[in-house]
Amino acid sequence: MPRLSQITILAPGLLGGSVARAAHTAGIADRIVLWARRPESRLKLREQPWCHEVADTPEAAARAASLVVVASPVDKIVPLVTQIAASLPPGAIVTDVGSVKGEIARHAAAALKSANPFVGSHPMAGSEKTGWEHSTAELFQRRTCFVTPLPDTAAAAVETVVGFWHALGAEVVTVDPDRHDEIVAHISHLPQVIATSLCSFLAQKNPAWRNYAGGGLRDTTRIAGSDAQIWRSILEQNRDEVLRALQQFEDELHGFKAALLNRDYHEVVSRIERGKAYRDQFRP
Amino acid sequence: MPRLSQITILAPGLLGGSVARAAHTAGIADRIVLWARRPESRLKLREQPWCHEVADTPEAAARAASLVVVASPVDKIVPLVTQIAASLPPGAIVTDVGSVKGEIARHAAAALKSANPFVGSHPMAGSEKTGWEHSTAELFQRRTCFVTPLPDTAAAAVETVVGFWHALGAEVVTVDPDRHDEIVAHISHLPQVIATSLCSFLAQKNPAWRNYAGGGLRDTTRIAGSDAQIWRSILEQNRDEVLRALQQFEDELHGFKAALLNRDYHEVVSRIERGKAYRDQFRP
Repeated sequence: MPRLSQITILAPGLLGGSVARAAHTAGIADRIVLWARRPESRLKLREQPWCHEVADTPEAAARAASLVVVASPVDKIVPLVTQIAASLPPGAIVTDVGSVKGEIARHAAAALKSANPFVGSHPMAGSEKTGWEHSTAELFQRRTCFVTPLPDTAAAAVETVVGFWHALGAEVVTVDPDRHDEIVAHISHLPQVIATSLCSFLAQKNPAWRNYAGGGLRDTTRIAGSDAQIWRSILEQNRDEVLRALQQFEDELHGFKAALLNRDYHEVVSRIERGKAYRDQFRP
Repeated sequence: MPRLSQITILAPGLLGGSVARAAHTAGIADRIVLWARRPESRLKLREQPWCHEVADTPEAAARAASLVVVASPVDKIVPLVTQIAASLPPGAIVTDVGSVKGEIARHAAAALKSANPFVGSHPMAGSEKTGWEHSTAELFQRRTCFVTPLPDTAAAAVETVVGFWHALGAEVVTVDPDRHDEIVAHISHLPQVIATSLCSFLAQKNPAWRNYAGGGLRDTTRIAGSDAQIWRSILEQNRDEVLRALQQFEDELHGFKAALLNRDYHEVVSRIERGKAYRDQFRP
């Protein structure tokens, strides 16, 4: 990828901070400029070696950008893109790190001038921890990063964003935004709802039982520690796909229960084996 | 705990092998005697430094035992206890490591002579991996081990079994066998059925999606890699409690879906926060 003159990262949290650190480590930009909503965060960011400049407004941060990464929660992405639209230099590309893509890709592209392409991104990396204080330069190494152009997105801009994530260590998968939303409803949002519901259920039984649990319950529920407002926005934006996946998962779980109820242990074993075959094929 | 003259471990897998290793490391017995069903396993066990003798039959392994640990899958525990009943010296105590306790505790106690108490155990340790080749001396360190006496179990025998697991590094919780089965239906068997059903569901969508997943799906589904026959037996033996827990979890999940369907994001957030509060209180 050709070296960028300025990467601007708006509203860095765990992902945005990791983008800044990874870009700094990879040496892919002359300048890394950040803007954070809270003045106290801006103060602290000024002390970070991977941050060349901290702007006081999104517009100021965007003014000389080659590439803007909007790292806010999903419900703030389109408002931020709209806010910087008039300040971007011609040719500057805008991307994001949001977990939902369909609506955002369409609205963000519409909010920008034609000289500023929007190319959505979604790195499949993260943690139940939030905040740039937990960010690391290695977060994207060997992780999938979806890049989700619309049919009319400029090919050169897509290539820049693909090259950007590749330089940060990610394995890039280019996919239509709506198809992306269907995929993550299954492999990310559904597991989140399940882990949350398991914990909210067990919280109503005897909570002390949790202290007896082995590693199984611990791993199965780890993501239930995630931030509620972040997930509210994700589920709100991807509601239809999540509801579809949830309905189908309910049917699957109900089928397991019916097999156990009917003492159909052949069916029970066949379901466990189908699940195991799927799980055993995860890449290491 | 007073030193034991002989610990006998029948049918060692991951747990039984780890009992032998941990007992060897802790130096709590003069002799550790094993019996394995397969001749090739007996050959390999003879080479292990934590194994003083390998017997050719369960009866021979039991003959001079102070404490017998039946480490077989749950459906083989009562048959093995029955098989060794006539060979045990007076005062020898029998325990197990099975994931289900109610039926086993009653049938095993009935199968033994009155001079040989049965005190059920269930260490909450393990892995999706099976076989004594994966065993470690540290497996029980700081893990809960349930000890499940019946009301008429001799107190001295309970004390010996509690002391045994304590010496192996476990945190012992003494509980009624049926209460145990209710607890593990919630914190172990239900998470297993959920992880299995999530994987068996995703296996029917596009399996390649799994390669895009972040750490969330990986952790949430780890235990779905567990052995199908082992889990068939556990679910068969704890069927009623698992069905009850499953029904209640279905209601919880359905409530989440209804909130999302009704765009009741106040309720969505409240459920995520209840789950998060529960998860955040896991001991580190």
